[in-house]
Amino acid sequence: MPAFMDCDFLLNTPTARSLYHEVAARCPIIDYHCHISPRAICEDQRYDNITQVWLGGDHYKWRLMRCAGVDERFITGDASDHDKFLQWAAVLGRAAGNPLYHWSHLELRRFFGYEGALNERTAEEVWNLCNEKLRSAGYSVRGLIGMSNVEIICTTDDPVDTLEWHDRLAADAGFATTVLPAWRPDRAMNLEKPDYLDYLARLEAASGEAVHSFAGLWRALDARMEHFARRGCRLSDHALETVTFVAADEAAVEDVFRRRLEGQAPSPREADMFRTAFLLEAARRYRERGWVMQLHYGCRRDNNLRMFQKLGPDTGYDCVDDNTSSAQLAAFLGALDARDSLPKTILYSLNPNDNQAIDTVCGCFQNSEAVGRIQHGSAWWFNDHLAGMTDQLTSLANLGYLAGFVGMLTDSRSFLSYPRHEYFRRILCRLLGQWVEEGLFPNDSETLETIVRGVSYENAKRYFGFPIKK
Amino acid sequence: MPAFMDCDFLLNTPTARSLYHEVAARCPIIDYHCHISPRAICEDQRYDNITQVWLGGDHYKWRLMRCAGVDERFITGDASDHDKFLQWAAVLGRAAGNPLYHWSHLELRRFFGYEGALNERTAEEVWNLCNEKLRSAGYSVRGLIGMSNVEIICTTDDPVDTLEWHDRLAADAGFATTVLPAWRPDRAMNLEKPDYLDYLARLEAASGEAVHSFAGLWRALDARMEHFARRGCRLSDHALETVTFVAADEAAVEDVFRRRLEGQAPSPREADMFRTAFLLEAARRYRERGWVMQLHYGCRRDNNLRMFQKLGPDTGYDCVDDNTSSAQLAAFLGALDARDSLPKTILYSLNPNDNQAIDTVCGCFQNSEAVGRIQHGSAWWFNDHLAGMTDQLTSLANLGYLAGFVGMLTDSRSFLSYPRHEYFRRILCRLLGQWVEEGLFPNDSETLETIVRGVSYENAKRYFGFPIKK
Amino acid sequence: MPAFMDCDFLLNTPTARSLYHEVAARCPIIDYHCHISPRAICEDQRYDNITQVWLGGDHYKWRLMRCAGVDERFITGDASDHDKFLQWAAVLGRAAGNPLYHWSHLELRRFFGYEGALNERTAEEVWNLCNEKLRSAGYSVRGLIGMSNVEIICTTDDPVDTLEWHDRLAADAGFATTVLPAWRPDRAMNLEKPDYLDYLARLEAASGEAVHSFAGLWRALDARMEHFARRGCRLSDHALETVTFVAADEAAVEDVFRRRLEGQAPSPREADMFRTAFLLEAARRYRERGWVMQLHYGCRRDNNLRMFQKLGPDTGYDCVDDNTSSAQLAAFLGALDARDSLPKTILYSLNPNDNQAIDTVCGCFQNSEAVGRIQHGSAWWFNDHLAGMTDQLTSLANLGYLAGFVGMLTDSRSFLSYPRHEYFRRILCRLLGQWVEEGLFPNDSETLETIVRGVSYENAKRYFGFPIKK
Repeated sequence: MPAFMDCDFLLNTPTARSLYHEVAARCPIIDYHCHISPRAICEDQRYDNITQVWLGGDHYKWRLMRCAGVDERFITGDASDHDKFLQWAAVLGRAAGNPLYHWSHLELRRFFGYEGALNERTAEEVWNLCNEKLRSAGYSVRGLIGMSNVEIICTTDDPVDTLEWHDRLAADAGFATTVLPAWRPDRAMNLEKPDYLDYLARLEAASGEAVHSFAGLWRALDARMEHFARRGCRLSDHALETVTFVAADEAAVEDVFRRRLEGQAPSPREADMFRTAFLLEAARRYRERGWVMQLHYGCRRDNNLRMFQKLGPDTGYDCVDDNTSSAQLAAFLGALDARDSLPKTILYSLNPNDNQAIDTVCGCFQNSEAVGRIQHGSAWWFNDHLAGMTDQLTSLANLGYLAGFVGMLTDSRSFLSYPRHEYFRRILCRLLGQWVEEGLFPNDSETLETIVRGVSYENAKRYFGFPIKK
Repeated sequence: MPAFMDCDFLLNTPTARSLYHEVAARCPIIDYHCHISPRAICEDQRYDNITQVWLGGDHYKWRLMRCAGVDERFITGDASDHDKFLQWAAVLGRAAGNPLYHWSHLELRRFFGYEGALNERTAEEVWNLCNEKLRSAGYSVRGLIGMSNVEIICTTDDPVDTLEWHDRLAADAGFATTVLPAWRPDRAMNLEKPDYLDYLARLEAASGEAVHSFAGLWRALDARMEHFARRGCRLSDHALETVTFVAADEAAVEDVFRRRLEGQAPSPREADMFRTAFLLEAARRYRERGWVMQLHYGCRRDNNLRMFQKLGPDTGYDCVDDNTSSAQLAAFLGALDARDSLPKTILYSLNPNDNQAIDTVCGCFQNSEAVGRIQHGSAWWFNDHLAGMTDQLTSLANLGYLAGFVGMLTDSRSFLSYPRHEYFRRILCRLLGQWVEEGLFPNDSETLETIVRGVSYENAKRYFGFPIKK
Repeated sequence: MPAFMDCDFLLNTPTARSLYHEVAARCPIIDYHCHISPRAICEDQRYDNITQVWLGGDHYKWRLMRCAGVDERFITGDASDHDKFLQWAAVLGRAAGNPLYHWSHLELRRFFGYEGALNERTAEEVWNLCNEKLRSAGYSVRGLIGMSNVEIICTTDDPVDTLEWHDRLAADAGFATTVLPAWRPDRAMNLEKPDYLDYLARLEAASGEAVHSFAGLWRALDARMEHFARRGCRLSDHALETVTFVAADEAAVEDVFRRRLEGQAPSPREADMFRTAFLLEAARRYRERGWVMQLHYGCRRDNNLRMFQKLGPDTGYDCVDDNTSSAQLAAFLGALDARDSLPKTILYSLNPNDNQAIDTVCGCFQNSEAVGRIQHGSAWWFNDHLAGMTDQLTSLANLGYLAGFVGMLTDSRSFLSYPRHEYFRRILCRLLGQWVEEGLFPNDSETLETIVRGVSYENAKRYFGFPIKK
């Protein structure tokens, strides 16, 4: 019986162990999609204690605490950091089967050298240990990134962002990790939002273009895309509740936009029509610039109105949305392809039932422009665990070409979350190891190592067209 | 290779065996949702033979026999009990992979001491053995319940029910098991049913309240809820084809109800609107009384018209309904929460693809009022097997807090079905054992035993607020 | 650790090995649904090289090559057969986890005696070996069928087909395999297609019946069904994007048909209404003739317009369609059953999430007319791999009667694909072996062998009512 989360964690065959330790573990990290702050990197932020790092903004942990019946005072409320940590430790200690259990313990092992199990009995010991480390040299944001061997980070940025922190980081020869912006124009797309006109005003200011029409909106966005491109942007991202394809002619779209400028709310159908038109325009430009398009969908957000009013978005009140049909997804990509506007694309659904639909839709739009031109993105958010990752990898392998997969990203707001790449790589090696040791794939280390190195590192670098390391 | 269904059945690691035998097996049973007859308990009913117990009303077994091509005469027809049993034995003997195989053999082992395999060759031996036992002392309904160490039973009762058998059982000091009513007002909710007005007449008679309006309906139901509360009712149950949320103002609901009283059939949309309004009213009252709300959905009933006309409902002609969207479910719970009317709730879908959606919806409405205030109910009906239970437990553990789960129920019409709790507990311990022996969770017996005891027994007792044992 | 794809491939327990080698491997093949050409059998076609056999028309392989970024020139283009093979070998060599890896290597082992692994390093060796064999005696189409121990083949034929090749094959005493036609009237059903009227003209010519009405259409089809019946047809097949049930009276259907004859395009709703009416008529006739009805649904075809215009249908641009609801499926079968028109039926969905819905719908319409009268078809197309087959078998066993399953078919256009029956049988034995060796089912070889022989061979023979071997 292997010890709890030892060096061979998840590696249940000799092949898996060899592939992980000899190949995967040695690859640098390319974290091509995350939500960390470039300013925090630039300013090399530090933390007073482990509660700030772990519970400061992590809605995964907040959700689990609420499930366990913890009072909100110890989650987002005014309890002391110490008391919050004790509550968290007690909950985590019984969270068998939850990925937070693994993530948290990987973080304790890799950053703090703690090899035990966190629970109510060990909480004080861990509190003291982590806080002591956090006060020591090397535990700044840059230190944590450095410990994690991160080669490239892509942040998530709004078109109106100045990217000034990216500029400063690019100019800083002393920091080895490349930090690039990524384009997330959700606020320009979601015209049904109450603050849409305020946002347009900001966009006008940032771009120097007046926005009186849909065409004008794109002149403004084009200016900002150029701004992003000059700073090395290689990919975009869109958050969608569902993928819908509502075709419309130019005049109809301009009409919806004009009425919105006049303060009129769009109908849900009009908002979908506008989103479709927006994405068609966006995708064409991504293709021209060689940017990758990421679509994150299948999420219904902010389901708890009372808590939304108290805490705002991204506080742990989102759920899987299961309304996207493969027909809509295929129609959308098909429309792009038909006008030769389909860029390299990564599809992520929060609904794990979509795995096979996604893989077969991807297969309809592949060609020699890239290996895995249309990608089934890594198991996302609620699926980011042993079962979810194994299912995504298995579906991709069954229905597509696993060897061409661009692999893992953290999608995280935390500088401690790089061990999720390790988690993913262990699961990848575990799966390959099982195939080999059951006789389902040859024990051919050359091929296996090529696959592991590709999925862990090389495919992403090539697919996104990232620059060579500084 | 372990022997067929021996004492370590399903327990494939030392950790699993120790957790099951030392902890889970010793917990009493709380069967908080079932369909057994309180009258049969009160009168301590007996059976002439095993066919009466097994095939008298068990549509699971009927379905399997029909799948295997057995003539209806040997299922619900006029063949002798002996001949029916022979047919059943022949079918079961080849039903590899079907949960009925396990349930039936657990029942043979635990109640009749038969350790072999039932098939066409052993059918006569088993027939004689079981019938001899059934004639002996201790094989009455109360005897079977006693053998199973059942502490609490909640039946399923209509608002018009007098609960007279519950009264008698409560007054009977000689019976150690607590039998409580549970509130199932489906007939008051489904106003599209042809016999709805007849039902209202019965409700008027039972409550002493005239029902001329939706408000009047609730006055009548309030009277009956009080009647149930005085007999210790702690939970409700609703059977729904899908969860739909169709908001409407009071006047619109009253109008639909008034037209129904006048004999006019509602449109499907009106029926959904009425159901929504009914559930909002019901939920608010559950919250006030501290009752738990159970929603069973995802079932399309009575699909075979010819057999429905011959045999009626609940005879084996139901299927999974896959039309409920997480958006509707979240909107419904969100509406309740927004008006502070969301009670403790358990969600069961017959569609196993809903697992992740349910777990993430639950996570949006948790707070410190209870551990796991909104629960993802145990794998239900068609999912009540090794794969289905494992999937439900895995999803719950990944996305929620397994340690707070209220666990198993039989949902059964049979007094022999208590070994399904054993089946569930073995699968729970099997899963925990696998995690521990793969190094995914610490081998910390204190924590593991707390989880197992909680899920097997203590969580349900605390969550429902059941009384202390007589 | 077992060797790569040796004789015990997929058989990971002694029970599995014994069941496969002693029972399953000895059963002849009944390939009751495929797309091979009866003419190619009749003329005993030969191949110049392995590229012709493998890449000539196999869109599974084309898709994988496109996923891996291969240029279309090496897929369907003008590159040489040799160069295409090298490209394929390089892709396949890294296609870990893809069923093509197993299918291709089973074909290399069973037909060509090659026990190694195909990849870019071994490509030349395999190219030479296979081509040499293909030139030798015994590697004609009939030779390949003979090597595979195929007892019965059902092709897929249009109502207008003359079946002349079937006639010649039936008259050929020198060929041991029975080749029967199967009825696939999709072109008569899909009245929205642009070439529908041309098709009707061909049907008029073939049947000698004028088609001026829906009733007339069925007089023509009846004549062709009789033509098929005289040649031993035992089953039909329908390809559907979704199963929809849109009831309509005769006049409405006649009206839609009449307008189509006049050149008017039907609305999507009218096309669904027509399809419903068509299938109701068809099913009634299948029932009268004792033919089996196969429904293949859940597929959205030809998603890539540009490649469709270049290559036509069935070229690798199809995806899972996830829009069929169990309610529609149950309503359709229920309507047939209510008018006593439901034939023996096999349901295949391309969406693996439908497994449980299908199994529970099947269970609503079983009776003693046949063992497993309504069948959940074998894992189809994109699901035809270890995970997909295991899921289908597990769902069927959990919710139905695995022992009555009619088992595998190739659904293939290739004469090399018979090892997929072997693949299926190994997975079946693997699953039974796991159950036995975990103590979940008795180690009762009589029962186990009955199940394996039934699912591999005997059930299909009995269910379809195939003739005794020539």
